[in-house]
Amino acid sequence: MKKKIRLGFIGGGHNSLIGILHKISAYMHDRYEIVGGVFNSKYEDSLESAREIGITKDRIYKDVDDMIAVENEIPTESRIEAVCILTPNNSHFEIAKKFLENKYHIICEKPLTISLGEAKYLLSIKEKNNLVFAVTHTYTGYPMVRQMTKMISEGLIGNIQRVDSQYLQGWINPIIHEKKKRKSSWRLDPKISGISSCVADIGTHAFNMLELVTGLKVHKVLSDINSLYNDNPLDIDANILVRMNNGAKGVIRSSQIATGEENNLRVSIYGDKGYLKWQQENPNKLYFLKENEPIKVLKPGHEYNYPITLNSSKLPPGHPEGIFDAMGNIYLGAAKAIRGENFYDHEFPTIYEGVRGMDFIEKVIESHNRGNVWLELEK
Amino acid sequence: MKKKIRLGFIGGGHNSLIGILHKISAYMHDRYEIVGGVFNSKYEDSLESAREIGITKDRIYKDVDDMIAVENEIPTESRIEAVCILTPNNSHFEIAKKFLENKYHIICEKPLTISLGEAKYLLSIKEKNNLVFAVTHTYTGYPMVRQMTKMISEGLIGNIQRVDSQYLQGWINPIIHEKKKRKSSWRLDPKISGISSCVADIGTHAFNMLELVTGLKVHKVLSDINSLYNDNPLDIDANILVRMNNGAKGVIRSSQIATGEENNLRVSIYGDKGYLKWQQENPNKLYFLKENEPIKVLKPGHEYNYPITLNSSKLPPGHPEGIFDAMGNIYLGAAKAIRGENFYDHEFPTIYEGVRGMDFIEKVIESHNRGNVWLELEK
Amino acid sequence: MKKKIRLGFIGGGHNSLIGILHKISAYMHDRYEIVGGVFNSKYEDSLESAREIGITKDRIYKDVDDMIAVENEIPTESRIEAVCILTPNNSHFEIAKKFLENKYHIICEKPLTISLGEAKYLLSIKEKNNLVFAVTHTYTGYPMVRQMTKMISEGLIGNIQRVDSQYLQGWINPIIHEKKKRKSSWRLDPKISGISSCVADIGTHAFNMLELVTGLKVHKVLSDINSLYNDNPLDIDANILVRMNNGAKGVIRSSQIATGEENNLRVSIYGDKGYLKWQQENPNKLYFLKENEPIKVLKPGHEYNYPITLNSSKLPPGHPEGIFDAMGNIYLGAAKAIRGENFYDHEFPTIYEGVRGMDFIEKVIESHNRGNVWLELEK
Amino acid sequence: MKKKIRLGFIGGGHNSLIGILHKISAYMHDRYEIVGGVFNSKYEDSLESAREIGITKDRIYKDVDDMIAVENEIPTESRIEAVCILTPNNSHFEIAKKFLENKYHIICEKPLTISLGEAKYLLSIKEKNNLVFAVTHTYTGYPMVRQMTKMISEGLIGNIQRVDSQYLQGWINPIIHEKKKRKSSWRLDPKISGISSCVADIGTHAFNMLELVTGLKVHKVLSDINSLYNDNPLDIDANILVRMNNGAKGVIRSSQIATGEENNLRVSIYGDKGYLKWQQENPNKLYFLKENEPIKVLKPGHEYNYPITLNSSKLPPGHPEGIFDAMGNIYLGAAKAIRGENFYDHEFPTIYEGVRGMDFIEKVIESHNRGNVWLELEK
Repeated sequence: MKKKIRLGFIGGGHNSLIGILHKISAYMHDRYEIVGGVFNSKYEDSLESAREIGITKDRIYKDVDDMIAVENEIPTESRIEAVCILTPNNSHFEIAKKFLENKYHIICEKPLTISLGEAKYLLSIKEKNNLVFAVTHTYTGYPMVRQMTKMISEGLIGNIQRVDSQYLQGWINPIIHEKKKRKSSWRLDPKISGISSCVADIGTHAFNMLELVTGLKVHKVLSDINSLYNDNPLDIDANILVRMNNGAKGVIRSSQIATGEENNLRVSIYGDKGYLKWQQENPNKLYFLKENEPIKVLKPGHEYNYPITLNSSKLPPGHPEGIFDAMGNIYLGAAKAIRGENFYDHEFPTIYEGVRGMDFIEKVIESHNRGNVWLELEK
Repeated sequence: MKKKIRLGFIGGGHNSLIGILHKISAYMHDRYEIVGGVFNSKYEDSLESAREIGITKDRIYKDVDDMIAVENEIPTESRIEAVCILTPNNSHFEIAKKFLENKYHIICEKPLTISLGEAKYLLSIKEKNNLVFAVTHTYTGYPMVRQMTKMISEGLIGNIQRVDSQYLQGWINPIIHEKKKRKSSWRLDPKISGISSCVADIGTHAFNMLELVTGLKVHKVLSDINSLYNDNPLDIDANILVRMNNGAKGVIRSSQIATGEENNLRVSIYGDKGYLKWQQENPNKLYFLKENEPIKVLKPGHEYNYPITLNSSKLPPGHPEGIFDAMGNIYLGAAKAIRGENFYDHEFPTIYEGVRGMDFIEKVIESHNRGNVWLELEK
Repeated sequence: MKKKIRLGFIGGGHNSLIGILHKISAYMHDRYEIVGGVFNSKYEDSLESAREIGITKDRIYKDVDDMIAVENEIPTESRIEAVCILTPNNSHFEIAKKFLENKYHIICEKPLTISLGEAKYLLSIKEKNNLVFAVTHTYTGYPMVRQMTKMISEGLIGNIQRVDSQYLQGWINPIIHEKKKRKSSWRLDPKISGISSCVADIGTHAFNMLELVTGLKVHKVLSDINSLYNDNPLDIDANILVRMNNGAKGVIRSSQIATGEENNLRVSIYGDKGYLKWQQENPNKLYFLKENEPIKVLKPGHEYNYPITLNSSKLPPGHPEGIFDAMGNIYLGAAKAIRGENFYDHEFPTIYEGVRGMDFIEKVIESHNRGNVWLELEK
Repeated sequence: MKKKIRLGFIGGGHNSLIGILHKISAYMHDRYEIVGGVFNSKYEDSLESAREIGITKDRIYKDVDDMIAVENEIPTESRIEAVCILTPNNSHFEIAKKFLENKYHIICEKPLTISLGEAKYLLSIKEKNNLVFAVTHTYTGYPMVRQMTKMISEGLIGNIQRVDSQYLQGWINPIIHEKKKRKSSWRLDPKISGISSCVADIGTHAFNMLELVTGLKVHKVLSDINSLYNDNPLDIDANILVRMNNGAKGVIRSSQIATGEENNLRVSIYGDKGYLKWQQENPNKLYFLKENEPIKVLKPGHEYNYPITLNSSKLPPGHPEGIFDAMGNIYLGAAKAIRGENFYDHEFPTIYEGVRGMDFIEKVIESHNRGNVWLELEK
């Protein structure tokens, strides 16, 4: 058995959505065990978070310095090897710097830091100490994004001549139009978020996706951003003309005031031989168009995909990956029942449904065998 | 902290897709720990399976009898409490019976058994011993299926007057037309699969969904099934007229020869006041239609949903639940890097991408501030 | 120039939707001119209808007998050659019979008659007199239906092993649940509609489509129909098991109580080599699926289509055929303006929009040429 | 009866797609009759074009001057009242100018002229002579574009805060990469097309749509255009930052090198209360989104629409407007049969299909009445 990687969490405590996402993802392939960390800024909260996910309190620390001091003394074979940084943007730099200097691998939420200078400094330590540093641009993990990347690198759309990428959300709309709300949102506070709201939070995903799938670099940008109100210091909407390093032109659009949009990340790459497009809200379909040919729709799990794509799916074609979540919900319902807790009607299917199903099967087969006649199921 | 439920696995060993699905789902909400079981029919394989997922070998058993004998002697607070049965259909009955008689809760794959008589017998023991028995009709765990069920029970579509349910697959098509292949598939062997292939495997899902979402019972059925070849004893295609116990009429269609279909489970319920439809391959959209009103599309995560629906989503609107899988893929890539194993190009985003992103953000903000001019990114 | 076919209308007078559809369709390819007929049952209404579409009153007749008597005396080169029958179902037979006996070609709405006996009698006269008799199953005129038919006949999906066809509507829902309304609808009156409502009106389309695209015949049927109320004599919902003459099995579903459905006609044909599906509400897309290949989506106007398909489109790819209707609306708006009638704001684009467009073009080109700078449009 | 408007055609001769579109559209609502014009630049071709659509040769003219000279002498009640200009862009100005000066109404294809100066000059004569001048931005005639325009003007999305419009095509891709082809296309010849290819041809549609639906004006633009090759003088791709006169920001994207795109015109308008989007390739659906409400999809023909929308549809909900084209194809097939010309198999449904349908209806009703049994159709 491969020994699991011992992972520490910085942030991601009990009431954090991002914490749930990282924890489940870390467990999914049996390659990590979370052994401790600093889940919340208050020690008591951190202990509570740890209890909830079954982690013993001896590896829960008051702060990052405490954590590093203690962990460094633990024997290599049980010491934390990698840390997952899920704290607000403005704290990433200090935390990552300390762990890198002490030779811990890093998995860090984006944006990496709040300035380019900080980011480059982190890169220099990482390289000096020869460590792994992942930045969780989550969307790059979708099977069909990987397929798209590989298809372009293999030349299937020819030379890239136009690029288009967008990340549109509307969530800030109920906040931005009320002075009180917009003044109290940490997302719009430069002290916490840095110089940008929209571009840093989601524009970077659209940018990252563009460079990833094309294999090209953005050469230069010309932007027009919108803050909507004079008392709002940060961008909440941005339209960005881009030129790629092969000369292709295009646009990156990102917005947090695209009312009603949820997480509308899309990327469209046009080559002289073909066109590929993908969108996050329907992630299992990759569209491949060529002049005067039927549109092709590629889906995960099929053998026509590249190995990296196939290895990014856990189930056969036709099951959206969310099937895991559906099954997880059933397990949760059953757990409540086993523990005698309250649960919702129909929170999990029971043996009664199983018995009904058997009755159904038998009657269906018998109806046919008797010449397609009506048969009643048991009451 | 809630103490986790100690779970045993029967089946689901290392090369089993269904095993991966159940394991991840069990872990997802921190309510179970897998402590042992019989993962494979051969003891050595079972030990190997256990090693792969980090389970110690002392709770791995040769067979079910051995497992029950030993576990029964373990003190209550560490004894396995529930078992997850993932073996072929024809073995469910014997296994479930033994565990129920020894007062273990059950989570069992469908179809429950290979006959109605067996199913009813299991039900009787479950009731006598007052145990929890879940049958994993996975699709019932989707948030929007739960929303649909609740909307109908609240009367939002009025009286149900027509029902329509389907589960269409094409996977048996490459098997059925070659005599050798169809004679050697266990799915088509009555000794293993029982009296039915298509109806038992997928028709039951369509049936279960129909009864679940309507809150009605199927009163009677009239079926027409297809085996395609005389030497194939089992149904691989079935069209089933149904009448519900409120008098509504409808059809259940299921097929394994619907060439090119993947897991096309759909359910459409028509009431005198409205119509709801849902489909598994696009599970985050629930369509609600009424005469002369705009079509409404409901999605998970929004506050307009019922509590059971909201509690079945882990993330805000606009993230398909498959986002967990995407993030899981990134963690996997990072794990390979940390362990020095081979990994694919772009298998996880690194600090280089983080640095690029910071450069992008700074240039975008500066371009705007300098009057919408072109700025170059670093090479 | 090809001489246009002189067409007479029976029914389809001024307030009739079906009349508008047939008239425009007849004019569309410059092959017909409507020269007279019996547009309405009352002569005055008929004259009014004729006036509205610019037909002189000397060829408007009191009834079919009068029409035949007079037309038969008109010299061949200006006599009506074909009649378009748009009257209620129960009158088709008598009208068609008279015209066939007098050697007029027929274009008739469906269902052809109200009994099989009548239909066969009409067929016998048509054959004896060697006339053209079209029944307007409109949906067969879509380009992609023709493509589907040809692809199947060319063997692209192999042997047909499952068929599925549906026509679902909900329009009768607001009528059927009120006794007074359902007793007064002519659609539910057997004297006018014959023995069937739903099957005759829309089930026949689903049936016709199935036989058309497969090139097979339905061998036998087993049906379950629903009238919903005892005092309603006709079917408003029907589920029909079918077996084709090659042994393939399938279902035809039709309903007028599928609340919220509009004209949901779909046909899915599964062969051992592939699967084709088409749906009327999105008629420009034909889906072609094969095992382990990307889904292919075919669209009209592309050279990869068969000649009959290409000849069924009037415009290049990417314009839904409804573009004609959009342009027709603009011509209508301009006509109102030219005639000094009231018209809606923006009912047609004017020269002001044209001037704006030129300003836009010039400024866009200049902005780029001056180094991507902001330029104002004229107010 | 309303007297039809006597229309003259300039351009749009027999082999012209645009001519077919305008002719059918003009006839669609019975408000125009085409009485003559200059269909082609060569007089013989023009006579041939006229013959094909049944227009007598006495009103076919050698050129525009000849036409005006003769028509001006014809008595008012039969003189041509309006002309439809379908010639290449660079000729619009001279032709329109002459007709306006002689007091003819104009229906003109876009772009209006090849310079802003020309356009403004035409506007001045039109105003002096008080004439109707329509520019055929065809897409504005779609029912749901009209609904969108009205909903925004009624305040349903609140204050507009972001705009997004696109028109993406790929048709020039097979031309642009071959030097010979790109040098010989009139679309890329500034002498014929003026200063722009892509922006003039399709960017103007995206621009026009933006101003139409928002009721706002574009205040200023900053553009980045692409010619791809140095020897190509005209833009074939353009990304245009825009600011509206209410301060809203946005982007217009247009391209002729978006390989595989057909006529992908879309417009998305985001207000502080809601969001509306429409796309030309699926023109019957208008999407209306608000924060934390189900997505609403509006469709034509329903009473919830505004009068202008309802009056822009000719048929009930659920029939794509292309149904007219489908029926037109059937009439064409029947015409070929009536005239004894060759026609395709299945080019129109015949009485045989009608007889089959009646057999189907009778057997379906009887099967049900006899207790849901199998009945055979006639061979």
